[in-house]
Amino acid sequence: IDEPHSFFQKSLSLLSVDTESLQKEIDELATFSDTPAPSVTRILYTEKDVLARRYIKNLMGLSGLSVREDAVGNIFGRWDGHEPELPAVATGSHIDAIPYSGKYDGVVGVLGAIEAINVLQRSGFRPRRSLDVILFTSEEPTRFGISCLGSRLLAGSEVLVEALKTTVDAQNRSFLDAARSAEYAKDQDDLSSVFLKKGTYSAFVELHIEQGPLLEEEGISIGIVTAIAAPASIKVEFEGNGGHAGAVLMPHRNDAGLAAAELALAVEKHVLESGSIDTVGTVGIMELHPGAINSIPSKSHLEIDTRDIDEQRRNIVIEKIWHSASKIAIDRGVRLSEFKIINQDPPALAEKTIIGAMEAASKELNLKHKLMISRAYHDSLFMARVSPMGMIFIPCYKGGVCGVFLLRWAAGGGVMGLTRRWSVESKDFE
Amino acid sequence: IDEPHSFFQKSLSLLSVDTESLQKEIDELATFSDTPAPSVTRILYTEKDVLARRYIKNLMGLSGLSVREDAVGNIFGRWDGHEPELPAVATGSHIDAIPYSGKYDGVVGVLGAIEAINVLQRSGFRPRRSLDVILFTSEEPTRFGISCLGSRLLAGSEVLVEALKTTVDAQNRSFLDAARSAEYAKDQDDLSSVFLKKGTYSAFVELHIEQGPLLEEEGISIGIVTAIAAPASIKVEFEGNGGHAGAVLMPHRNDAGLAAAELALAVEKHVLESGSIDTVGTVGIMELHPGAINSIPSKSHLEIDTRDIDEQRRNIVIEKIWHSASKIAIDRGVRLSEFKIINQDPPALAEKTIIGAMEAASKELNLKHKLMISRAYHDSLFMARVSPMGMIFIPCYKGGVCGVFLLRWAAGGGVMGLTRRWSVESKDFE
Ligand SMILES: [Mn+2]
Ligand SMILES: [Mn+2]
Ligand SMILES: [Mn+2]
Ligand SMILES: [Mn+2]
Repeated sequence: IDEPHSFFQKSLSLLSVDTESLQKEIDELATFSDTPAPSVTRILYTEKDVLARRYIKNLMGLSGLSVREDAVGNIFGRWDGHEPELPAVATGSHIDAIPYSGKYDGVVGVLGAIEAINVLQRSGFRPRRSLDVILFTSEEPTRFGISCLGSRLLAGSEVLVEALKTTVDAQNRSFLDAARSAEYAKDQDDLSSVFLKKGTYSAFVELHIEQGPLLEEEGISIGIVTAIAAPASIKVEFEGNGGHAGAVLMPHRNDAGLAAAELALAVEKHVLESGSIDTVGTVGIMELHPGAINSIPSKSHLEIDTRDIDEQRRNIVIEKIWHSASKIAIDRGVRLSEFKIINQDPPALAEKTIIGAMEAASKELNLKHKLMISRAYHDSLFMARVSPMGMIFIPCYKGGVCGVFLLRWAAGGGVMGLTRRWSVESKDFE
Repeated sequence: IDEPHSFFQKSLSLLSVDTESLQKEIDELATFSDTPAPSVTRILYTEKDVLARRYIKNLMGLSGLSVREDAVGNIFGRWDGHEPELPAVATGSHIDAIPYSGKYDGVVGVLGAIEAINVLQRSGFRPRRSLDVILFTSEEPTRFGISCLGSRLLAGSEVLVEALKTTVDAQNRSFLDAARSAEYAKDQDDLSSVFLKKGTYSAFVELHIEQGPLLEEEGISIGIVTAIAAPASIKVEFEGNGGHAGAVLMPHRNDAGLAAAELALAVEKHVLESGSIDTVGTVGIMELHPGAINSIPSKSHLEIDTRDIDEQRRNIVIEKIWHSASKIAIDRGVRLSEFKIINQDPPALAEKTIIGAMEAASKELNLKHKLMISRAYHDSLFMARVSPMGMIFIPCYKGGVCGVFLLRWAAGGGVMGLTRRWSVESKDFE
């Protein structure tokens, strides 16, 4: 440790965040949206996504970071440490946004990280390890059905490299073509160049809104994540017989829409049967074909999301959903034409020493904190495969008070305290 | 009766239909579609609808009919009788097609009528009463949510005249603007010009596919409709709380999608509870918002269709659906933000003398027939308000064998036999 002892001893709480600028940046980023304010819709590689990325790169440049982009558009803004040969410390999140979302998901982990670096720079701090702010490509599965696309690739997913050669969106536009339209993947079809070298980072920390009500309800400012629940998603299709809503008598029907409705309720039932509060399941997509008031649905399409911190318990839910889908198909005389498990990832654990550093920082900052599970998954789930990982939650439910909490947290020092501490102290992962 | 007795005695079965041309016309009309063959999608006042209308008007012209169009595009092709001052006999149906439908719905009643006139002309027949072939505008509610738009207006619906002044489609395009784009409603906002004068027709007959399995299963060629079931349609919306599919625990959810799923199954339950085979109910539309795999649905939208030949029994089903919707909303903590009965029409009875003429014609043609209920509604439901009405069904289920049955039926003489007989014999409705 070659950092002047005096600097490290300077209380975190004396570091002062420019809360006004930070909120202004969050609001400005929210204007890059395909739906009207206050909703945000920012889909991978669309014009609005490209403009938002440019905005972030400009902010990184203003903070003196050197910007690098990889072949799928993961963006890295580096503050060089004075021992740049050491594994760096990274922090970051995503800025893509599902249709009609709020303005904080992902965004606080990117803009918050840049402001954290601004604060550290203003304080005169010079990092020993280099610090990377990462913007991950396509955390959301909206366009290509693949969540955490950028971080999965960084974590070395050979399966994904293969899949992306033939992945297309709903308009049948290929992933590679879309990436090229945003000036990525220029002269390569093989995207394994994105893989991070082992040992690139000594720690990765993600700041994120909780996206649940617990912190808010309990009046706690900081959630320290100990584990990220194991996510899985499933696509289901039923095919029955259509026909005219007036003419086909009830006993003659094989209604694919009612099969879908039954399965949606079965998902809820199986999740509740798990007996654990940590098991969740959602039918976010349920589409009927042809979708006319006087047509019996001949096809239905569901997309199911289920998660748990216990991988085995989640897998039991998946199995029960499969049994229900099969039974419903038989009972209603429809065909279960697809039951496809899109992804079924294991959970990830946060690194104990990072948890410890977060607890210490929260204490020093006089912020109430609580250890918790992340039931949403994040790029951290995949970064955990190539780096020690930690996550910080701030309260944010239904969009209402996110800003207040973010600013209170940021004002207290948050992620920069942690990254500073890590950059200075840790030798654990060199 | 001034028709030569000898002609009337000529057996109907000697009249010979050009089945090849008829099938070719059906196939050709099916190519005016916004979705690929074999599906047909033809939405009111779109380019494809306008082209299909032109095709029909050309066929009418080739058959020597004089063509008239009213302000909403109901098309009348008239063969003048030699007593043109008498109320005419009309037959017809629609050619608009819901998304991904087959090629026979409505179409057989228009093209079949034109071919029937061709046959009668070839046979040397001269009608006493004038004969009208009618193409009704927008039998399907696809674009403006109003079924049997043309025939409702013909039947004198003041309510509809008012409603159409402000009706818009899903893209917020007004009905009047759309009609004008198809060269209708040119210099009028008030569409009461469309109303038929009382006593215009002495009979109206519609040929239509059954759109159910009964005739096909029982091997019967002709269904003679005695009544058209009373249709009703309902729009429902639930509003709950959205949120991230991973982060919001099950007890905190107010899932509008699951409310919709429950209501869909409740509709089925209430219909089956009626205890009558004649009660049907369908949820053809069920949409979730925002519709992403990792978003808990915050809104849902259902459109429900329910029918019965017994109006009161159908109204009890509607009431039960309303109770279920209210209870589901309370139980799930969502808001029943809309429960709107779009239409709730009474049933219609076919005219006994027309039924009798159909029975006699079927017998003469050696075609097995059966009296039956139309559970689908048709323009005949509304024509019955201004004219004695009858309907002929031919078998057609799942699209497979419609053509075969249509041609067998048409070859036997079908609708032209009936309209001829009516034109010659009937004095009942002058
Ligand atoms: Mn998200
Ligand atoms: Mn996120
Ligand atoms: Mn139809
Ligand atoms: Mn029809």
